[in-house]
Amino acid sequence: MKEYILLIDTHDSKGLVYNVSKILFANNLNIETNAEFVDKDTNKFFMRTVISGDVNPNLLLKELNEALPKDSTIKLNQKSKKDIVILATKESHVLGDLLIRYIDGELDANIKAVIANHEYLRDLVEKFDIPFHCISADDMERETHEDLVIEKIQEYTPELIVLAKYMRILTPKFVKTFPKQVLNIHHSFLPAFIGANPYKQAHHRGVKIIGATAHYVTDDLDEGPIIFQDVVNVDHSYSWQDMRRAGRNVEKIVLSNALQLLLEDRVFVYENKTVIL
Amino acid sequence: MKEYILLIDTHDSKGLVYNVSKILFANNLNIETNAEFVDKDTNKFFMRTVISGDVNPNLLLKELNEALPKDSTIKLNQKSKKDIVILATKESHVLGDLLIRYIDGELDANIKAVIANHEYLRDLVEKFDIPFHCISADDMERETHEDLVIEKIQEYTPELIVLAKYMRILTPKFVKTFPKQVLNIHHSFLPAFIGANPYKQAHHRGVKIIGATAHYVTDDLDEGPIIFQDVVNVDHSYSWQDMRRAGRNVEKIVLSNALQLLLEDRVFVYENKTVIL
Amino acid sequence: MKEYILLIDTHDSKGLVYNVSKILFANNLNIETNAEFVDKDTNKFFMRTVISGDVNPNLLLKELNEALPKDSTIKLNQKSKKDIVILATKESHVLGDLLIRYIDGELDANIKAVIANHEYLRDLVEKFDIPFHCISADDMERETHEDLVIEKIQEYTPELIVLAKYMRILTPKFVKTFPKQVLNIHHSFLPAFIGANPYKQAHHRGVKIIGATAHYVTDDLDEGPIIFQDVVNVDHSYSWQDMRRAGRNVEKIVLSNALQLLLEDRVFVYENKTVIL
Amino acid sequence: MKEYILLIDTHDSKGLVYNVSKILFANNLNIETNAEFVDKDTNKFFMRTVISGDVNPNLLLKELNEALPKDSTIKLNQKSKKDIVILATKESHVLGDLLIRYIDGELDANIKAVIANHEYLRDLVEKFDIPFHCISADDMERETHEDLVIEKIQEYTPELIVLAKYMRILTPKFVKTFPKQVLNIHHSFLPAFIGANPYKQAHHRGVKIIGATAHYVTDDLDEGPIIFQDVVNVDHSYSWQDMRRAGRNVEKIVLSNALQLLLEDRVFVYENKTVIL
Repeated sequence: MKEYILLIDTHDSKGLVYNVSKILFANNLNIETNAEFVDKDTNKFFMRTVISGDVNPNLLLKELNEALPKDSTIKLNQKSKKDIVILATKESHVLGDLLIRYIDGELDANIKAVIANHEYLRDLVEKFDIPFHCISADDMERETHEDLVIEKIQEYTPELIVLAKYMRILTPKFVKTFPKQVLNIHHSFLPAFIGANPYKQAHHRGVKIIGATAHYVTDDLDEGPIIFQDVVNVDHSYSWQDMRRAGRNVEKIVLSNALQLLLEDRVFVYENKTVIL
Repeated sequence: MKEYILLIDTHDSKGLVYNVSKILFANNLNIETNAEFVDKDTNKFFMRTVISGDVNPNLLLKELNEALPKDSTIKLNQKSKKDIVILATKESHVLGDLLIRYIDGELDANIKAVIANHEYLRDLVEKFDIPFHCISADDMERETHEDLVIEKIQEYTPELIVLAKYMRILTPKFVKTFPKQVLNIHHSFLPAFIGANPYKQAHHRGVKIIGATAHYVTDDLDEGPIIFQDVVNVDHSYSWQDMRRAGRNVEKIVLSNALQLLLEDRVFVYENKTVIL
Repeated sequence: MKEYILLIDTHDSKGLVYNVSKILFANNLNIETNAEFVDKDTNKFFMRTVISGDVNPNLLLKELNEALPKDSTIKLNQKSKKDIVILATKESHVLGDLLIRYIDGELDANIKAVIANHEYLRDLVEKFDIPFHCISADDMERETHEDLVIEKIQEYTPELIVLAKYMRILTPKFVKTFPKQVLNIHHSFLPAFIGANPYKQAHHRGVKIIGATAHYVTDDLDEGPIIFQDVVNVDHSYSWQDMRRAGRNVEKIVLSNALQLLLEDRVFVYENKTVIL
Repeated sequence: MKEYILLIDTHDSKGLVYNVSKILFANNLNIETNAEFVDKDTNKFFMRTVISGDVNPNLLLKELNEALPKDSTIKLNQKSKKDIVILATKESHVLGDLLIRYIDGELDANIKAVIANHEYLRDLVEKFDIPFHCISADDMERETHEDLVIEKIQEYTPELIVLAKYMRILTPKFVKTFPKQVLNIHHSFLPAFIGANPYKQAHHRGVKIIGATAHYVTDDLDEGPIIFQDVVNVDHSYSWQDMRRAGRNVEKIVLSNALQLLLEDRVFVYENKTVIL
């Protein structure tokens, strides 16, 4: 029997849980997992329910839309592997980590392609029989290059775009083309050290802990909703290259954990923040 | 308006969430917070709901008991500060941490008394105008001493007994007298290093991380359901006393965090494990 | 036999370790502990050696000064408890943690006095028989208030001044009066969230990890050399007050760890960073 | 100019650092890095010095042996990549992590071969142009199988043997054949959950933190000197498979970090513990 993931984003009101569970019960559906969160400041209500049984998606959505407040966002996704496209530049640690998980069957996704702005990673990617596209940014305008990348991505119609240490700055057009579909790993513990060379910045500041942050991409560089973060201890004996080495371990685990949350439809966004259920 | 905490421990079945939310809705009660967990292996269902409104406890419990499976455990506690009694021996770090939180109003509990088997901590406790009782274990049988301690505890009818580095081993009688009411902090990262001198054991083993564990006390030493744990890094340069010094920081934070979870009625127990909602 | 701590801050050159160890050996002194660090970028050399034996401080310093490069900084401190003065405002968690350690004999320092800008903490401090001075900042200029505080501090001639959630902003005059003597705990993971209300800032940004940072105070707010940092996980369900509650646990442990490093003369400063040996 | 790593393991005595640094100075050698540790309980002295200059290894070793106590262990290794052989079984996460680092040039080693007791990993390994040998253990005695594996390893004369989730239990013969050359990753936070299925054990115990441990292999299963450990938080909602998933991230980072320490000659062993300089 197929499983579906019901995602509700609405305003809290009396009887919400009752109304939703009544509809599920009336349709003879099983609740496999259920989690809710109410944000007291904004009165926002979020719910993620994994259901199984004889699901009639259209009917169920109709009933839920009728029962819930007018401006609710309700999604009903059949549990399945999502198609993803990965963007990369030269560094292999994050991309490589995804590829190893992929061939092991651990990644709940179909990697449709890898797009990079250098040839450097072609060998690695093609070992795994994944289409690799090099779209160099040399000798062209940022927007022109990005249009080529957008075009290539769209050939694969992915649900998610994963920036695996893709070092090109994205324009608002890119963000607008793929709203809430772009996952980035920034090699610092945001909001510290935004922008370029965060390991050099961290080394300069003399911090004793560094980290990495996975977030949705928005128009503002490194300012998007944070999905997952982690840290590692460093000390005075670390050169910035040592910090980068230690940080790379964190980057790949953080990106992978964040991607897994997205693949399981666990992430809601509001007010530039995430709710993870 | 008073808040109540509804705690349900039962077996999962279709319509559970529907039935419970229907009763709450029918009684015009607000759901402030709600969290559930189903354990797939055992089919156990746990739910913690903070409700507000015009609550009629007896009526509500009656309705819930009729709606839920026969062997369900349903509790409805009015949100309030719990009375606690603390047991200690000589070390002051865990007890002192609780006292500082207490006078700051951060601890959601009433510390009714501190009972110790040495005089050592009297000065500290009496600074905070809390009754201190020294019940020495010298020159008497373990059971005799424990009976005196039990008697003294019962004068205060606490809901929780907190062992703040209380170093006496408790007999099954003690555990039976206060079932699921006794919180202990063990100075290791269980199940490693049970028993005496865990820091010496840790030092001997040459671990690179040590920790502390807060758990419910059961008949088996250090084997009870774990509520909270945390760790700290150590290295070869740490003597066992250095490990103890670092470990003490973890002990007091872990004990305090676990106590807070108990005071907020967030902890369910089954199969010697805890579910924290 | 007394122990001395030898601290050397100089430029790396061939034979440095040889020259220093030759002098120690020639004076028949024992090396209890020794640690060095060379920063490759700046060629700075730092050394901390705990020595015991029949130490003639003046003679030893003279020999070392003659053997080392001209601009070296060499200190020879007899191992002893340092006098400290604590500044606080209203929050008790950091101060209270220090007081508990103090009466337990764990703090390698003499707390000479606590100075606060409110009466609020008097009761707590006086329980521990420590002089408490309230110097209110109401109805006076910042500089005037600070002069009163400086004057009071100087009555005690402390080696270190510990800001235990002292919320007044210090002027450059204060920093200049007590160069490299002022330890502060900032309730964020620097350099994130400098300034006021870091927990509100953190909550607004939607971070999944918060922290605290102990640092030397300099003219620039929250920009001084970092000594120790630590973090704790949070999530979407944390209000900013929940973050503050969790953060306070980190603040007090971080401040205490940093203070211990200073009391053991383990901290060197250069280029606004610390080397911890 | 080549760099050498000098490793000294001896008993502490007056003038040790002086004698060693005198010899280095007299030979006009530069000290790039230096770290020492004295264990007070046993009076053991450990030192790791990275030196550069015109090194005459035989001469230097002769002078050091003459200057140091009789039973000292002195090694002088030219800084170079070590040859390693990896043993694996079916899981790919640890092996794959090493392969990705390898082709990126991050691993300071030459992977001479991978030996596994199943064919499963052949495809993955051969993508990276590394010799793969499958030596099945089916239908043969443990010792017979192990002899075949030992024979194959010895063809490559590796300095280190890395067990990357190699699930065969090694006999004392194996350990004796490769003394202090075998690095293992155990999927628990030792000494908790030794032996088989540590994730099931951890799940059964209801721990809130799990971890992984890299250690030297000795005759006693999972009892060898610990080199590196790390942990990750889990909770009641984790099935044992969820714990394994989270734990695998820790396993590969821990193994990789430990391997790096070994490749840099940073690890001393005594009394079944490690000193990391």
